[in-house]
Amino acid sequence: MRILIDMDDVLADAVQRFLDWYERDFGVKYTKDDLRGTKLHMIVPEEHRKIVHGYPHHKDFFQDLPVIEHSREMVEELHNRFEVYIASAAMEFPFSLDHKNDWLNQYFPFIHWKRRIFCGDKSVLKGDVLIDDHDFNLSVFSGRAIMFSSPHNLLDTRYERMENWLEADKIFDLK
Amino acid sequence: MRILIDMDDVLADAVQRFLDWYERDFGVKYTKDDLRGTKLHMIVPEEHRKIVHGYPHHKDFFQDLPVIEHSREMVEELHNRFEVYIASAAMEFPFSLDHKNDWLNQYFPFIHWKRRIFCGDKSVLKGDVLIDDHDFNLSVFSGRAIMFSSPHNLLDTRYERMENWLEADKIFDLK
Repeated sequence: MRILIDMDDVLADAVQRFLDWYERDFGVKYTKDDLRGTKLHMIVPEEHRKIVHGYPHHKDFFQDLPVIEHSREMVEELHNRFEVYIASAAMEFPFSLDHKNDWLNQYFPFIHWKRRIFCGDKSVLKGDVLIDDHDFNLSVFSGRAIMFSSPHNLLDTRYERMENWLEADKIFDLK
Repeated sequence: MRILIDMDDVLADAVQRFLDWYERDFGVKYTKDDLRGTKLHMIVPEEHRKIVHGYPHHKDFFQDLPVIEHSREMVEELHNRFEVYIASAAMEFPFSLDHKNDWLNQYFPFIHWKRRIFCGDKSVLKGDVLIDDHDFNLSVFSGRAIMFSSPHNLLDTRYERMENWLEADKIFDLK
């Protein structure tokens, strides 16, 4: 079984970086609870919207992002049993390429370079399972599409859901 | 129809860089004709073999490679009619990521980021056609596998072959 796993907001906590940078720039501390069903650029004052939306295009946005809780050990579990690929739509943010690869080297060193994919549109990927936080990736995937919970997608009921990485046990029958 | 196109030695002339660097380092000028059915590291004196084999791991190897003749105009033709993706096994050479993306920006700017894939093993890609110079990529592809001629593969008779980019006219019935 081939399992494709997204990076941002599935393994790497990009939402937290948005919140941290917004606080750094504007002195206001939003939390993930404020983002239920939406994204930060949608709830900030209109004059900040473009700036926030542009954060991922900054050189350092993807550098050393926090690791999503339990992702490391559970992905290693899956990796030991299945054919695991990490598939990130990194091409939208050219500065992210090196940071993402370095990040995998640091936190997921067991993911061989053969199992790393930086792409744009994920419709080109072939696999049995895709774990991703974005409906636009899950909707073009022909296998089992699992939505990894992230604040912005919490109101979406169209997909099988993984609330957090500990649920991988049950979803993939690891015990 | 979705056409996946490899980069090295299909669009970008990596073989020429091997030859140029070898001449720079050892003062001996091999040509592509010397590489029929083999690769440079196989025909140089044994004490140079490891050095040559390691060239692609150098920081600058993939920077501003020469463009393979007629690739630009013919890929643009294909791009105008079909769903064209560029798929490079870039992950083996982490230094290549930025250089390859910059190279596409410079020489193939019409290839949108959504249509760019940097991967390892190409078995994970889904498409109707793959144009590639390596048998290990073509052999794991489930669609129409077209071998793009490069010195190292000239003795391989197992695949449909594209000798050069002008042949795309005939292969894809462009006229």
